Amino acid sequence: MKKVVTFGEILLRLSTQSFLRFSQAESYKATYGGGEFNVAVSLANYGLDAEFITRLPDNELGHSAIKEMRKLHVKSENIVLGGDRLGLYFLETGASTRASNVIYDRANSAMATIQKGTINWREIFKDADWFHWSGITPALSESAAEACLEAIEMAHELGLTISTDLNYRSKLWQYGKQPHEVMPKMLQYSNLILGDIDTAYFMLGIEKANPDYQDEASLPKLYDKIFELCPNLKTAATTLRYSVSASHQRIGGVLYDRQKIYNAAVQEVTPVVDRVGSGDAFMGGLIYGFSEELFDKQRALNFAVAACCLKHTIEGDYNLVTKEEVEKLLSGDFSGKVSR
Amino acid sequence: MKKVVTFGEILLRLSTQSFLRFSQAESYKATYGGGEFNVAVSLANYGLDAEFITRLPDNELGHSAIKEMRKLHVKSENIVLGGDRLGLYFLETGASTRASNVIYDRANSAMATIQKGTINWREIFKDADWFHWSGITPALSESAAEACLEAIEMAHELGLTISTDLNYRSKLWQYGKQPHEVMPKMLQYSNLILGDIDTAYFMLGIEKANPDYQDEASLPKLYDKIFELCPNLKTAATTLRYSVSASHQRIGGVLYDRQKIYNAAVQEVTPVVDRVGSGDAFMGGLIYGFSEELFDKQRALNFAVAACCLKHTIEGDYNLVTKEEVEKLLSGDFSGKVSR
Amino acid sequence: MKKVVTFGEILLRLSTQSFLRFSQAESYKATYGGGEFNVAVSLANYGLDAEFITRLPDNELGHSAIKEMRKLHVKSENIVLGGDRLGLYFLETGASTRASNVIYDRANSAMATIQKGTINWREIFKDADWFHWSGITPALSESAAEACLEAIEMAHELGLTISTDLNYRSKLWQYGKQPHEVMPKMLQYSNLILGDIDTAYFMLGIEKANPDYQDEASLPKLYDKIFELCPNLKTAATTLRYSVSASHQRIGGVLYDRQKIYNAAVQEVTPVVDRVGSGDAFMGGLIYGFSEELFDKQRALNFAVAACCLKHTIEGDYNLVTKEEVEKLLSGDFSGKVSR
Amino acid sequence: MKKVVTFGEILLRLSTQSFLRFSQAESYKATYGGGEFNVAVSLANYGLDAEFITRLPDNELGHSAIKEMRKLHVKSENIVLGGDRLGLYFLETGASTRASNVIYDRANSAMATIQKGTINWREIFKDADWFHWSGITPALSESAAEACLEAIEMAHELGLTISTDLNYRSKLWQYGKQPHEVMPKMLQYSNLILGDIDTAYFMLGIEKANPDYQDEASLPKLYDKIFELCPNLKTAATTLRYSVSASHQRIGGVLYDRQKIYNAAVQEVTPVVDRVGSGDAFMGGLIYGFSEELFDKQRALNFAVAACCLKHTIEGDYNLVTKEEVEKLLSGDFSGKVSR
Amino acid sequence: MKKVVTFGEILLRLSTQSFLRFSQAESYKATYGGGEFNVAVSLANYGLDAEFITRLPDNELGHSAIKEMRKLHVKSENIVLGGDRLGLYFLETGASTRASNVIYDRANSAMATIQKGTINWREIFKDADWFHWSGITPALSESAAEACLEAIEMAHELGLTISTDLNYRSKLWQYGKQPHEVMPKMLQYSNLILGDIDTAYFMLGIEKANPDYQDEASLPKLYDKIFELCPNLKTAATTLRYSVSASHQRIGGVLYDRQKIYNAAVQEVTPVVDRVGSGDAFMGGLIYGFSEELFDKQRALNFAVAACCLKHTIEGDYNLVTKEEVEKLLSGDFSGKVSR
Amino acid sequence: MKKVVTFGEILLRLSTQSFLRFSQAESYKATYGGGEFNVAVSLANYGLDAEFITRLPDNELGHSAIKEMRKLHVKSENIVLGGDRLGLYFLETGASTRASNVIYDRANSAMATIQKGTINWREIFKDADWFHWSGITPALSESAAEACLEAIEMAHELGLTISTDLNYRSKLWQYGKQPHEVMPKMLQYSNLILGDIDTAYFMLGIEKANPDYQDEASLPKLYDKIFELCPNLKTAATTLRYSVSASHQRIGGVLYDRQKIYNAAVQEVTPVVDRVGSGDAFMGGLIYGFSEELFDKQRALNFAVAACCLKHTIEGDYNLVTKEEVEKLLSGDFSGKVSR
Repeated sequence: MKKVVTFGEILLRLSTQSFLRFSQAESYKATYGGGEFNVAVSLANYGLDAEFITRLPDNELGHSAIKEMRKLHVKSENIVLGGDRLGLYFLETGASTRASNVIYDRANSAMATIQKGTINWREIFKDADWFHWSGITPALSESAAEACLEAIEMAHELGLTISTDLNYRSKLWQYGKQPHEVMPKMLQYSNLILGDIDTAYFMLGIEKANPDYQDEASLPKLYDKIFELCPNLKTAATTLRYSVSASHQRIGGVLYDRQKIYNAAVQEVTPVVDRVGSGDAFMGGLIYGFSEELFDKQRALNFAVAACCLKHTIEGDYNLVTKEEVEKLLSGDFSGKVSR
Repeated sequence: MKKVVTFGEILLRLSTQSFLRFSQAESYKATYGGGEFNVAVSLANYGLDAEFITRLPDNELGHSAIKEMRKLHVKSENIVLGGDRLGLYFLETGASTRASNVIYDRANSAMATIQKGTINWREIFKDADWFHWSGITPALSESAAEACLEAIEMAHELGLTISTDLNYRSKLWQYGKQPHEVMPKMLQYSNLILGDIDTAYFMLGIEKANPDYQDEASLPKLYDKIFELCPNLKTAATTLRYSVSASHQRIGGVLYDRQKIYNAAVQEVTPVVDRVGSGDAFMGGLIYGFSEELFDKQRALNFAVAACCLKHTIEGDYNLVTKEEVEKLLSGDFSGKVSR
Repeated sequence: MKKVVTFGEILLRLSTQSFLRFSQAESYKATYGGGEFNVAVSLANYGLDAEFITRLPDNELGHSAIKEMRKLHVKSENIVLGGDRLGLYFLETGASTRASNVIYDRANSAMATIQKGTINWREIFKDADWFHWSGITPALSESAAEACLEAIEMAHELGLTISTDLNYRSKLWQYGKQPHEVMPKMLQYSNLILGDIDTAYFMLGIEKANPDYQDEASLPKLYDKIFELCPNLKTAATTLRYSVSASHQRIGGVLYDRQKIYNAAVQEVTPVVDRVGSGDAFMGGLIYGFSEELFDKQRALNFAVAACCLKHTIEGDYNLVTKEEVEKLLSGDFSGKVSR
Repeated sequence: MKKVVTFGEILLRLSTQSFLRFSQAESYKATYGGGEFNVAVSLANYGLDAEFITRLPDNELGHSAIKEMRKLHVKSENIVLGGDRLGLYFLETGASTRASNVIYDRANSAMATIQKGTINWREIFKDADWFHWSGITPALSESAAEACLEAIEMAHELGLTISTDLNYRSKLWQYGKQPHEVMPKMLQYSNLILGDIDTAYFMLGIEKANPDYQDEASLPKLYDKIFELCPNLKTAATTLRYSVSASHQRIGGVLYDRQKIYNAAVQEVTPVVDRVGSGDAFMGGLIYGFSEELFDKQRALNFAVAACCLKHTIEGDYNLVTKEEVEKLLSGDFSGKVSR
Repeated sequence: MKKVVTFGEILLRLSTQSFLRFSQAESYKATYGGGEFNVAVSLANYGLDAEFITRLPDNELGHSAIKEMRKLHVKSENIVLGGDRLGLYFLETGASTRASNVIYDRANSAMATIQKGTINWREIFKDADWFHWSGITPALSESAAEACLEAIEMAHELGLTISTDLNYRSKLWQYGKQPHEVMPKMLQYSNLILGDIDTAYFMLGIEKANPDYQDEASLPKLYDKIFELCPNLKTAATTLRYSVSASHQRIGGVLYDRQKIYNAAVQEVTPVVDRVGSGDAFMGGLIYGFSEELFDKQRALNFAVAACCLKHTIEGDYNLVTKEEVEKLLSGDFSGKVSR
Repeated sequence: MKKVVTFGEILLRLSTQSFLRFSQAESYKATYGGGEFNVAVSLANYGLDAEFITRLPDNELGHSAIKEMRKLHVKSENIVLGGDRLGLYFLETGASTRASNVIYDRANSAMATIQKGTINWREIFKDADWFHWSGITPALSESAAEACLEAIEMAHELGLTISTDLNYRSKLWQYGKQPHEVMPKMLQYSNLILGDIDTAYFMLGIEKANPDYQDEASLPKLYDKIFELCPNLKTAATTLRYSVSASHQRIGGVLYDRQKIYNAAVQEVTPVVDRVGSGDAFMGGLIYGFSEELFDKQRALNFAVAACCLKHTIEGDYNLVTKEEVEKLLSGDFSGKVSR
């Protein structure tokens, strides 16, 4: 595969340490993250050529975000500087019966105020064959939604594969439009969609279905409605997540290609070090699976689930694991034996 | 409900970090705690008017303790300054098969040397309708026991509801008296007692009974002996704690009102972040439940168990959770899903 | 028992904190460790007279290692200064599905370049009755193997009990010799060997057997082959470790004395704080068990398993627990109740 | 003196630690600060009754700010909840030849979007006799300037003493108005103004004068122009700051009451721990001096300079010192001897 | 020289970090210290045989103190276990114009409750030729003063050299006796006394003299009064400390042997990392100087001053420097050039 | 200017924190550094195209070093993987009268074992016009010296400007050759040499001269000897460093171009945050000065001195400052005023 381009917002993440609550925090750990960037990091770690496009403020916080991208081997040359502030979010990490908590502080960020026409997509896509975006960007602001649609249309025109993580965030979408007013025309170009059926229905304006993912017989019919509204769609996939507690997750996955339902076995993850970004790790694993030469859908799904499991063990938003580490899990070795 | 007043000692807590043993500690995390104060914090968090009464040394450590109280919205205006030192305790937090360990260093503290007549109880109780004390204060010293009895008698005279956590600490009671020589005359005024049956028997001078809390039929008879010796008692409750390991607890509860045994379903808590103060969290939950307008005993017990579970996930002695967070657990949501 | 002498390398351990990956580390926690030294620490903690022999560089890092030994009550008077550097290792602590990872940086250390004749063994062994070494020292370099053989021969000549932990490390053994070329002549003097059957076979040049430790009937025959090649061997023991994940271990043990198979019940350990050194904790427990006056093999094995379990809860390489703490587990108390 | 009320914005301060640059920061120390709040903290520390009025978002960050106020004994009961976000600023602490650096991120904060009519000033001022505001609030937004003017007018009407710190911040004033368009009508009510002559000229629309503060003869004439435009003004004061380097400051002060120039001796401060808020510490010292029973202008100025010096030795925005500590400096004891 | 024995209390020191005030502290750095122990550490660092005698509680804090002693190569074999608690002190480190602050919490410590007859001095002094004590021990309690006198008398009987640091602490001496009632009979055996003239006068019951240490002519007469009351005294010495600020000290010294005044040149120390224990570092340097084979009083005094200077650069109570490092300063190299 | 290429070793730097001594360190701060890499970082910060060439081990530590390079915008594409270990050094940071201390642990590193022929210099130099090396590389090993000479010869052949920092390290040069046996044939190609006259004499085999840098009349003659032995030399420069103490430095500089002596005014730096790498900061400033369009030797020297001063205020080996920050100092603004 040639270059994968992802587009979205990167945030400064300020998280309390050692399970402290916000009111106990005397300091915040500072890292970076954002759905589409996290996907780019996964791909770079697996050896793919990954580029991230965003808009950042021209101050030390914006520059530090670029330093982080370079460190992680994600291309940042086409990032545009401008706007007033870096978006950020505060994270309180839960444990056991207490859930994690996120306070977004991203309104009016450089990315939220991006305008159509800011990015030279034709130039960027020249040597790319995959474009990834998520439902977070159109949730930021009307102009961000337009800037994203512009990218999608150009990617489609130039024949890139387009993947989308639906990523519904109820705390966003504050600018007066509902997802179903914005998303359908954006999703029509997607070739691969990640998200559960009800989120897709919600964004496409279809009524809630309460799918039973264990019942493989019923799934194709439910998925077909999505395919009907998304004429370019070839594959839909979902992470299956069973939350026993904030510290104990069970992770599986389902993939449908209009012909067959693929299932990945459910894996136990306990304790959870950091679950933020685990969906992005799944997405990154899936794209990587699709990029492999002898591409096999079952293996791609399994790879995505194993990558997602590993992400839960790593602090921060990104999945800092190699292809070989994911494959060790794929091969069935969950023993956690010390390598020495 | 009007004001709840709690009376006892607040200690500086010096705890090793990251599961280090005492001999490995290069620094200690400094927080505050004490059974009766912890209860007041819970109540303040639930929106009640809570006041804490104690005696503190007039130095920077004593003043810092007051700052902490104010921060946590617990009234501290009637605290008395005096004495030589702030009591403190050292905590080594265990994990898995290794138990936590406490070294008390509270002898001769400002509170242990308090004298009867120090506190203007009549004034403090003017706008209060609940008084809470625990078995720790009479365990500190003869004069502390006397000062506590003085408060109890005034509370009773003024018609306040009186609650007591038996809180037996074998490392205290060093001043020459046994619990059964001191406690009966104090407990006679209690309206609500928290503690297991055998602790109550021990403090009241009754022979050990080894109650089976699963056998609801046998419990009323065992409880009735306590009610006989405590003429004002209306409710007795117990946390049920099954320690799988230092990192895994199962928490339930029993409540008896001389008419009926109430049971709360057992909840899993793993991993445990900090179990100190979880009994106080239960007590705080119970008092809150009793304060609700449409008071329901089963709901009060369930609220106490859920509050106790949440406390295990929070570093420090206090249960820094809101009413809404406890209620989310009560509603059955233990999933720990990130809120964003 | 008189003095126990252990011989080997002590390393500076540089570990990432809070489950961070190497690429995330901004600092490293600095402690010390090494198989044979860890055993000495266990024995000193149990009240035995323990001495550690090694070679250290004459710089501040070497001196700091000696300070650590003194702190832990391990005799260090006969340590020899010389050589260019202190060996070290980098540790990334895993969690859940992600294994811990070790990067050794110990080539050309003071201990790896030790020569035969450096240590005055006759003098050191004068007041000793036990000598312990492990398969790590002969894996370091040819000269270290020779220096170790010299010690073994002198211990045997002076009638000390000799114990050996096979400790196979595939990342060592880089100097051109295979274990089976070096170990047999060293193991012939061992009275007690710790290690699984296949490691013993591998080091002695016997073909792999894939023993089933649950099948007690088949074990004696497999062990007997080892006894045949090690004429002084009286006891062989193995830790049984079932790795559920990096954070969850199940620990048991088997001991064979040419007459009977002894088994210890499997214990759960979750979460794991630090599993490095848990084998050494087992070894230390076993030697301690053998040192007791009324020595009982079953109790020695159980003690070793309980000690091994506790080690998993302690940060660093050594098992910082007392005899009394191990015995509390032996007595069946895994509850982790706070002592106060 | 009765209650002092200050009005302004409180920010979450995120500062790099140990002189790290922004690009090196892996975590930020989290404290709070804001010019007018810092003044209130000083006054509360000196034993005055101080209240802070602001607008805060109704989320965990806003609530934590209130906890901090309570901890510091500043009244917070009349704070209004509303708006979208807590303003914040990032601080990189300099040393020696490298200056500190601030990145403001306070646009659209709860306080910046406050509207006239939000605060019930008549009620708040009922038991107050001093009102303090600074040039930061009118620099935030047009509506904040209006809300501030409303407070000033009510304070004037009710006969409170009004003090103002000019506090010019070039990075603010982004909403389309210049200081001289906004400040004159606000300053006309001030009884005490803190700020250098040129800042006052700039805000009042007078041409730059480059005053020589050593030349006491020339100062009255320069000050008189300010008094002319501010009919209620009784006292003008200035901190004199000679920056040798980021780590070495020389602090003096000048005060003029239309009759006489008062001068405070210049004090050396090296090294500087944290100079943010040192101007607010001066202001707090001055108000305290004015509140004393036997009020003496020279002593008030000296107290303000000593308080300002001490602030440089304390991490964070506030001057956490007692009256007695300031007086120890006033008495000439700069020795820094350990008290034991 | 043979063994030096020092006797006194070792405290757990809990200090705020990074110049934080007590009310800001979220954690305390935990180290150990105590005047007489600090002297023993200096001597051990210089290669002398040093032993520390004290009484410690038989708990994990007492055991950890012993681990610290062993680490620092100070003999601890004759320490007696008993009593209820380890004494401790809280330290807030000042900077610039703000002084450090100490809160003692050492009443009723194991050492304060020591009784005469607890220590087997005859046995301990068998292989010793120097005994050091300070004015802190008789300040703790009447029984500690008696236990100290017992040691002094035995040391004198056995012909040991006796040194004393007067170490007046106004916050101690709380048990009803004044120094001049206790110290004279203890000081009569001292051969070397460290302390300024007025402290010696105060403890011996002589009237204040306000000596001018620059005026060498007047000093002998002032010192002679001390020699008269201390018949065994051969040498009196004083650190000269000029406190520019908490961060800047100037250190010199004076020594008198009844024949001649020796002066050491004043050295600049800025910034000060930690000045606690700098007097003990001087004392340690002096004893070391007296122990040298070709003993020279001027060199001993210079060595003590240089050692004292270095102590100010080291965190904690002890002077962790080698003989060679002190001598580098003595040779005039204050350049602080990196050694590489 | 086109690309600047620097060649040398990058080390993992493990430094104690808060002025702790090695024996006190419980953790080490982990950063990277190395003379020639530090120069590349300076140049990248000033906006030049900088590439670093070295050899690194193919493990997580080597990969992390590359991540750091990318983060800092230094090209790393031509780095060669191989060898056994990453070189490292331990740093104890001094203060006041106590010097910093370095323990090298870099023997047998990937760079020390590099061989001639490993690097494709012709390719790398294709788009470069400056090559920088230092006296550290030939000090590592014979093969490293050869590999360095190979680079120098190719750079000369291709017409690049060659700069050299003499960087004499007495703890290196352990492989049997003296500097004067190796350096002359390497230095003959240098166009710009940084180092004091006596170091140059020592490396070129000339007798010590003890130059007086204040005596500008005598300098040309002393420098001319160096120019005679280095036929390509056009400029020689020296940092002038006056160490008042480890915390206080005075920095100046001298430059000679065979025609004229240029002097930079001496600047005060106190306190010093971290002086390691300050020579490299000077070198980086000098190369940058030479690269400017309107190149002026006096300005280049002044820029180098100002850059060197700023480096002392920044933790770590590199000078993380922008061109604009250096120029602010050049313009005479040493005030350290907060920018806000």
